[in-house]
Amino acid sequence: MTLPEEVTHRVRYADTDAMGVVYNAVYLVWFEAARTEWLRARGLPYLEVANRGISLPVTEATLRFRNPARYDDLVTIAARMDRVRSRGVTFSYRVQTGGRILAEGSTTHVAVETASGRSVLMPGWLIEPLRLGSTPEDPS
Amino acid sequence: MTLPEEVTHRVRYADTDAMGVVYNAVYLVWFEAARTEWLRARGLPYLEVANRGISLPVTEATLRFRNPARYDDLVTIAARMDRVRSRGVTFSYRVQTGGRILAEGSTTHVAVETASGRSVLMPGWLIEPLRLGSTPEDPS
Amino acid sequence: MTLPEEVTHRVRYADTDAMGVVYNAVYLVWFEAARTEWLRARGLPYLEVANRGISLPVTEATLRFRNPARYDDLVTIAARMDRVRSRGVTFSYRVQTGGRILAEGSTTHVAVETASGRSVLMPGWLIEPLRLGSTPEDPS
Amino acid sequence: MTLPEEVTHRVRYADTDAMGVVYNAVYLVWFEAARTEWLRARGLPYLEVANRGISLPVTEATLRFRNPARYDDLVTIAARMDRVRSRGVTFSYRVQTGGRILAEGSTTHVAVETASGRSVLMPGWLIEPLRLGSTPEDPS
Repeated sequence: MTLPEEVTHRVRYADTDAMGVVYNAVYLVWFEAARTEWLRARGLPYLEVANRGISLPVTEATLRFRNPARYDDLVTIAARMDRVRSRGVTFSYRVQTGGRILAEGSTTHVAVETASGRSVLMPGWLIEPLRLGSTPEDPS
Repeated sequence: MTLPEEVTHRVRYADTDAMGVVYNAVYLVWFEAARTEWLRARGLPYLEVANRGISLPVTEATLRFRNPARYDDLVTIAARMDRVRSRGVTFSYRVQTGGRILAEGSTTHVAVETASGRSVLMPGWLIEPLRLGSTPEDPS
Repeated sequence: MTLPEEVTHRVRYADTDAMGVVYNAVYLVWFEAARTEWLRARGLPYLEVANRGISLPVTEATLRFRNPARYDDLVTIAARMDRVRSRGVTFSYRVQTGGRILAEGSTTHVAVETASGRSVLMPGWLIEPLRLGSTPEDPS
Repeated sequence: MTLPEEVTHRVRYADTDAMGVVYNAVYLVWFEAARTEWLRARGLPYLEVANRGISLPVTEATLRFRNPARYDDLVTIAARMDRVRSRGVTFSYRVQTGGRILAEGSTTHVAVETASGRSVLMPGWLIEPLRLGSTPEDPS
């Protein structure tokens, strides 16, 4: 597991629903924002990954909603990389506001050669920075 | 102006916001749905337009909101073609529920060669069905 | 488990992303649409549940993406009720197009007294139609 | 007209569509974000307006799309107040990236008493900060 990367977001009416809280699907959008900044902070802007012909589509996602987020809340979304495998990677997420946990979740991704749509082994230029990304928590 | 094409949509929580009504941006999504079915009904599925290398991006949009739509309303979105020009086309829309007008609007599109991103003259295979689409209201 | 309820949806540009496929968060919106029609078909429009002061917020969701959905695909989203408990209910979903499975998933809901925001026992008027909803597959 | 307020946003896959560009409806969401920060900077967080029983729903919107925004673009959305009237207010917007204008637009709002849903005169506590907001450009 690696150090998290956080993004902040001010909740807008667009994010909420008629129950007065943030709509459940919005959390997956927030997960994307946090994951993208996690990759950028490791020197791997996703745009560069895409430009090299690899995409990392989501194959699984889980969400646990603990407390509702409301209009104008300033939420922080933290992403961590949980596991890097030869063919993919798993991230986990925590959404908070004012120290209160709103939601947690995870997304699993496989490496795909964009042109052919086929699952591939993660190339070295992609897997190494991800593994180095874990160093800070590896005291050995 | 041509005969309208209608689509129906059941309002979901995803469409609403914390004011208890449908969020303003959602109407542009509904306009897309109605415009797409208008084209399909004239024998021009937008997917075929795109496959022939032409796209019709929106260059202008207007919206007038008259009455709020609410959760579980069954709304109908009617699209009409207002005007076809050598380089583009304008559609107008009316959103209703139970005979009450919720919103009206318009979108203007230009023909673009997708590969180059350049504005082009509307090709004959695109402009002719659009013009024929207007016949029903041409009593002459 | 109960008989499924299906809704159909034509994929629009609004649903897709720059990878050319339907964006992952959109599936949660589709799950809502299918779940709502499942409830309506059992005589329990969610609007009536809400009007009686009960809401059923999502507490957990899972998604497994098997194949991408693309622009103009006509997808069907089937919802089933998996389990009804004293304080909540779990639904599962399957998204398909042309016989191909695109995604599967589940949502878990708890009964909440909307006014207080507190978790409550599912009232009889809510739990009974849900249980009756399961009869067709319960031959015993 | 008043000094603008800007917000920045990193374009995510969620914002884009299968044409590879930001979907048109997303701009209305960005307009909301910029308008909200414009109000906050004048000491009028919209949440406070809402808590005092007034809402400012959008009655009209216009959008002109000049250049497409793409994945990972860092866009700035500037809001200005164009006109304050006894019963409403008009804002205009400009979306840019790297000095290039992507889109412009406007939204018109009326003051509504939330409880009754009726259009009302803008109360003094709302209209005065809006008018003071214009001072910087009023050298007379």
